[in-house]
Amino acid sequence: MTTAVRPRPALSAAAGRVPSSTIRDLLALTEDDRVLSLAGGLPAVGHVHDAVLADIAARVLAEPDAAQYATTEGWAPLRAWLAAGLGADADDVRVTHGSQQALELTVRALVDPGAVVVVERPTYLGAVQALRAADADVRALPVDADGLDTDRLAGLLAGGLRPRLAYLAPTYQNPSGVVMSAERRSHLGALADRYGFVVVDDDPYRDLGFTPPPPRLRDWVPPDLAVTLGSFSKVLAPGLRVGWLHGPGWLVEPLTRLKQAADLHTSTLGQRLVAEAVARPGWLAGRAERLVALYRHRAGVLAAALAAEAGDRLTFAAPRGGMFLWARLPAGRDAAALLPAALARGVAFVPGAAFALDDPPADHLRLCFATLPDADLAEAAARLAAALDAG
Amino acid sequence: MTTAVRPRPALSAAAGRVPSSTIRDLLALTEDDRVLSLAGGLPAVGHVHDAVLADIAARVLAEPDAAQYATTEGWAPLRAWLAAGLGADADDVRVTHGSQQALELTVRALVDPGAVVVVERPTYLGAVQALRAADADVRALPVDADGLDTDRLAGLLAGGLRPRLAYLAPTYQNPSGVVMSAERRSHLGALADRYGFVVVDDDPYRDLGFTPPPPRLRDWVPPDLAVTLGSFSKVLAPGLRVGWLHGPGWLVEPLTRLKQAADLHTSTLGQRLVAEAVARPGWLAGRAERLVALYRHRAGVLAAALAAEAGDRLTFAAPRGGMFLWARLPAGRDAAALLPAALARGVAFVPGAAFALDDPPADHLRLCFATLPDADLAEAAARLAAALDAG
Repeated sequence: MTTAVRPRPALSAAAGRVPSSTIRDLLALTEDDRVLSLAGGLPAVGHVHDAVLADIAARVLAEPDAAQYATTEGWAPLRAWLAAGLGADADDVRVTHGSQQALELTVRALVDPGAVVVVERPTYLGAVQALRAADADVRALPVDADGLDTDRLAGLLAGGLRPRLAYLAPTYQNPSGVVMSAERRSHLGALADRYGFVVVDDDPYRDLGFTPPPPRLRDWVPPDLAVTLGSFSKVLAPGLRVGWLHGPGWLVEPLTRLKQAADLHTSTLGQRLVAEAVARPGWLAGRAERLVALYRHRAGVLAAALAAEAGDRLTFAAPRGGMFLWARLPAGRDAAALLPAALARGVAFVPGAAFALDDPPADHLRLCFATLPDADLAEAAARLAAALDAG
Repeated sequence: MTTAVRPRPALSAAAGRVPSSTIRDLLALTEDDRVLSLAGGLPAVGHVHDAVLADIAARVLAEPDAAQYATTEGWAPLRAWLAAGLGADADDVRVTHGSQQALELTVRALVDPGAVVVVERPTYLGAVQALRAADADVRALPVDADGLDTDRLAGLLAGGLRPRLAYLAPTYQNPSGVVMSAERRSHLGALADRYGFVVVDDDPYRDLGFTPPPPRLRDWVPPDLAVTLGSFSKVLAPGLRVGWLHGPGWLVEPLTRLKQAADLHTSTLGQRLVAEAVARPGWLAGRAERLVALYRHRAGVLAAALAAEAGDRLTFAAPRGGMFLWARLPAGRDAAALLPAALARGVAFVPGAAFALDDPPADHLRLCFATLPDADLAEAAARLAAALDAG
């Protein structure tokens, strides 16, 4: 065959818009065993390992038709279990290939190119990617200790801003760890009701609170505007890719057609594993409890080591849950510029710039306390302090 | 909370464009045990069941970190196995959540709204959905006994048509069962080379040929324009949702970023199950061999029963592989109009109209011979004949 000298076909505009994930690029760099990585976000599920999933898988796959095609909506027993936990109707629940897919399908179902979407600054990197792919007009509003600044949002709305949706992770947010206050949640719900935009509550860390978490955002948002995203990745198994979505029928039905076009349905085996595991009385709660105890301890170890080693140069709030500590550098320092020195000393983190599209929190770093054991956390803090000294 | 009388937020244009799958809607109707369904497309994987997947799953999940997050590109041993089978570089292979996702990501990476895409008529329904979601300008060209009419395509190209891609399922096509001839494959490859469009070879039925299949389309297409999609759903397990894609780097790299935004990565467990199963010498080939023997037999049973019961009213070619028989009604009859009478008599099929966006083959029906045992196939043919008599 000849290969003519001809131009390569064009990529779509969408393909050109999606940035690579800084974190995933960074993970490749930190596969070096000599680097202690606080950059990843690997849940310590190995710590709470038992034989339950293996037993269920062996039993399910022993059936001749164990892993047949299934419905796009999701495995009915799992949808029923989720609906019961939400006090909702199973008809409004969908099982997705991880909560990332729930997020991306929600964006695709609502966002035309140029549509306004409100997000937090900082925000979850996966949201940035999905919103970029959809060519949303993203407006990032700052997060403080009480969560998204809803007064600022109210001002923008009064000034004519008309978002299609607001995307938040209001409970132990990745990366900031912030929990949105009840007052702000209530204010956001009232604004959504008044201006008619969808509120997406991305809530994967709910079961990882060091104290009981607040009610879900949907308790304050009109039911026809409330979307909740959830995940089995943080407590059960990230690699099964089983997440879920709850939302109003007018949105969930077309979203289901988009999912049908995207991948037909979520893994039958994955869904059955999760459904049978969570149906065991107390199993999931016990697992979460042990992870919370571990993470609370590890967060304390990292925070204490950082305070001891670099307390004069790093500012941070004690984590209240989730998997991340969000630390601030002294005025004028840039986390991305610090990274090479840190990697050279054998410690990795994610620079704050990864968590926003524009005006990023460049003076912040995200440190994961979930994955490493105590001694490594302390050593990582010491290496980070050395990098700060050198920079 | 108040719920104001306010308009519901708008859905995206994409959400409004994707039609529901006629087949999935039909499957809901045919869950009635009294209906013999030739409508579905369930592989008879239960027929070749053994303990291999259960054993692997139990072993893999016994590891503490069995189902951790993984890379977007796919499980390296599986990519290496696929690359070896293709005589390709593993860097150009991606593992996807079923081949439907491989198809949809390819479309999203290449198709801007209004971009021209050439497809076969009839074509795979999942392609129709993905192309609709992307707002492609779909041009369907007829398939005859030798596959897509490439002379017609050449004429359109000479007349100025400039497709971004041509999507084909040239080997035991769903629904027509047709195998594209070597001449046509060669002609298509030359046209792609001359006019610079991507050729997508959707090839899930390759291992289900009653005689050896032809070489892959990519053998005739310039490497920078050839995309191959494959699936483990037809021979291994549909519900694991493990498919794959091979293509040129300029396309595969941005497509990987789209996948990252879509769902981070394919199920770690699903990929490990497939990777370890296919690594067993002879296992996959043996499974395919037994399925082919079964399908060849069942295709013969259905064809004979249809010929005996309705040979004067149904025209069809004997299937050469795959899972479907594509039958034509007498002139002027409409398959969709026949369906209610068929369902009333306890038999279901998919009307031809499901397999094209415009000018659909309304006088055809798709009959799946893969799922039902002999007696049911014969009875289904008798019921179909009775419905034809009544109509």
